[in-house]
Amino acid sequence: MSTRQNLSIHLAERPNPYIVPGQTFSQRTTPAPTASDLKPDQVLVENLYLSLDPAMRGWLNDRRSYVPPVQIGEVMRGGSVARVLASTSPQFKEGDLVTTFGNVWTEVLVLPAAQATPVRLPANARVTDAMGVLGMTGLTAYFGMLEIGQPKKGETVVVSGAAGATGSVAAQIAKIYGARVVGIAGKDDKVKWLTEELGLDVALNYNDPDFKEKFKQATPDYVDVFWDNVGGEQLELALGRANKFARFVECGMISQYNSAEAVGPRNIMNVVSQRVRLQGFIVFDFIERYDEGRKQLAQWLSEGKLQRKETIIKGGLKAAEEGLLQLFKGQNTGKMLVEIKNLEEGAKL
Amino acid sequence: MSTRQNLSIHLAERPNPYIVPGQTFSQRTTPAPTASDLKPDQVLVENLYLSLDPAMRGWLNDRRSYVPPVQIGEVMRGGSVARVLASTSPQFKEGDLVTTFGNVWTEVLVLPAAQATPVRLPANARVTDAMGVLGMTGLTAYFGMLEIGQPKKGETVVVSGAAGATGSVAAQIAKIYGARVVGIAGKDDKVKWLTEELGLDVALNYNDPDFKEKFKQATPDYVDVFWDNVGGEQLELALGRANKFARFVECGMISQYNSAEAVGPRNIMNVVSQRVRLQGFIVFDFIERYDEGRKQLAQWLSEGKLQRKETIIKGGLKAAEEGLLQLFKGQNTGKMLVEIKNLEEGAKL
Repeated sequence: MSTRQNLSIHLAERPNPYIVPGQTFSQRTTPAPTASDLKPDQVLVENLYLSLDPAMRGWLNDRRSYVPPVQIGEVMRGGSVARVLASTSPQFKEGDLVTTFGNVWTEVLVLPAAQATPVRLPANARVTDAMGVLGMTGLTAYFGMLEIGQPKKGETVVVSGAAGATGSVAAQIAKIYGARVVGIAGKDDKVKWLTEELGLDVALNYNDPDFKEKFKQATPDYVDVFWDNVGGEQLELALGRANKFARFVECGMISQYNSAEAVGPRNIMNVVSQRVRLQGFIVFDFIERYDEGRKQLAQWLSEGKLQRKETIIKGGLKAAEEGLLQLFKGQNTGKMLVEIKNLEEGAKL
Repeated sequence: MSTRQNLSIHLAERPNPYIVPGQTFSQRTTPAPTASDLKPDQVLVENLYLSLDPAMRGWLNDRRSYVPPVQIGEVMRGGSVARVLASTSPQFKEGDLVTTFGNVWTEVLVLPAAQATPVRLPANARVTDAMGVLGMTGLTAYFGMLEIGQPKKGETVVVSGAAGATGSVAAQIAKIYGARVVGIAGKDDKVKWLTEELGLDVALNYNDPDFKEKFKQATPDYVDVFWDNVGGEQLELALGRANKFARFVECGMISQYNSAEAVGPRNIMNVVSQRVRLQGFIVFDFIERYDEGRKQLAQWLSEGKLQRKETIIKGGLKAAEEGLLQLFKGQNTGKMLVEIKNLEEGAKL
C-alpha cells in the first residue's frame, strides 16, 4: 500500500489588504497521518467539505480580536465536515461523520476526540447542512436574531447580506417570528431567491442606482431590527432609518474587511436620538446553548420553515484559496463550501 | 403699579451649523402675564435659573429625533428653576420653588400645574441642584450609568466630558460602584478637579499632544464602560480600547453637533470582534423612575458621595444665547446655568 499524500494549506503572508491565491497561502504535500499515529482518545479524519466564511478574513490580520490570528506558517483555520477513518475514542468509529473547527485546511488530520462533533441530521437534511443551517452559520443566525435582534410580530427587520449563509437563515427566523422582513443582496438572482423562495416581504439589490430611495420606501415604519453583515454604506443607511429602540445585530462588516480605508457611519449620532442598541456578538459566546439552537433549527428545517442553498466550489482543497476570493466577491448564494471529497465517492472507497 | 415687562427668547433661524447670538435667536419684550391671566390648575412663575444643556443644539435642527425640533418663532425650549408668583392649583402656592421643562426661555410665564415639579431639596443642597445633580443632569447620569453602563467592581470606566454636568455625576456613580474611573476633559483645571476633588483614578486632557498614548496607558486592562458625551475621535479611541463585552453609554456627541461634516468611528468593526454593546438613551425614557433616581442622588449628595460644581452665567435671560456658545466651547465646569433672578434678591421683593 502506497503512502497517502496529504495536501495542506498554510498562511504564507498576511494579506495587505487583498488575499492573493498562491501568495497569501502556500500549499504543502506531506505523507498523510495514519491510524498508527493515533494516541488515546483521538480520531483520524478525512475532510469532505470545508466551510468558507467571511470571518476568515479577520483571522488573517495580526490584530486584537475575539480569537488570536492565524500565525504565519500555520495550517489555515476553518470548519469542516469530515469522516472518521480511524478512532481510539469510544465515542467515534470508522465512517462516522463529524464537524471540526480549527487549523483544518488539510485533507487528512488527527484530532483529539473532544474537537470532533458528531453529525446528527434530521430526515430531510444533507450532510453539508451540518456546516450550514445546522452548523455555525445557522447557530449564528439563531442566537444573533433571537438574543440581540429580538424581532416582534409586525416589526420591520432588515437583513443585509440576506442571500448569504447566515443572512438567509436570520431573515427566515425573523419571518417565523412574524416580522416584516426586507432583505438586501447584490445580484438580481439573489434578490429573486429572497422573495420567491424564502418568502421575504421585500428584497433590494444594493447595486440598483435607486437603492437608497427604494430602501426608504421599503421601510415606511422605519427599521426595528437591522442585521448587519456588511457595515459601511448599508449600515449608515439603516441608521438613518432606525426606529426608536431599534436593535442593530452586528454580525459582521464584509464591506470593510478588505478595505485599506475603513469608514464609520457618519450618522452614528442617531444611536443616541433613536436610542439604538448596536451590539456585536460572536457565535462562540453561545457555545453552552448550541444544542438548543441545533435542535430548533433542525425542527424548522424538517418542518419546511427554513429553505437553504449551497454554493459548492469543486476542485478539492487546492481550490479553497480561490473559493475565498469568490466569497468576498459575493459569488455565493447561501452557504459556500469547498468539496474536498464527495461523500458518495467516499462511500465507494 | 406699572405693567411688568417680560423678555422672551425665540428661535429666529436654524443654525448652519453655528449658533450666532442676535441672529439664531430674537429677543422680544411684551407685557408679562399676571395672576389674572390664570385659568384653573395653572401657575404663574418667574424663572430664577435656566439650564444650559448640550442637547439643546439638537433641538434646533429640523430633523427626526426624540423630540420635535423647536419651531421657528417659538420660545426656546429648556429647563428652569422657577418660583411660583400665583397659583390656581391646590398643589402650589406663592413662593414655592418648581422646576419646569418646555418653551420656557422667558422671564415670567403661565404653566399648567402638571408641568411644574415641586423642588424638594435635602439639607445640604442648593436650589440650583434641582437642575443639576438632582435634576435632568443627575438623572441622565444615574439611569445611563446604571442601566446601560452597569459598572462592576474593578472594571475600567472611561467618561468623556467628565467635567461636565452629566459626566461628572456619571463618573462619581461609577466610583460609588467600585470601578476604576478615567475621566477626560479639555482643560487642565478641569482635569485637576476630576482627580483632586471627584476622586477619579486618572484624568486626561484631550488637548494634550500625548493624549492618545496616555489614554492607552490609562487603560491597561482595556475599557469596560465608555460614557460617551463627545463622539468623534474620543469614541474611536475608546472603541480601539474596548474590552470584550464592553458597554458604550451613548449619551451625546458634542463634538459632532456643530460640525458641518460628521465623522463615524472607522473602527466600528470592533463592536463585532469585542462584542460591544453601544446603546443610546434619553433620560425621558426613564420618566417613570425619576422619583427613585432623585431619591438615590439626594442620598448620595447628603452623604457627601457626590461633589458638584456650577458655572453660572450672569446678566439675566438676555445673556442665555451667549451662555450656549460658552457651553459648546467647554467653558463650564459642572452644570451650566443662566441666572435670571438671584433667589436672595427675589426674596427681598
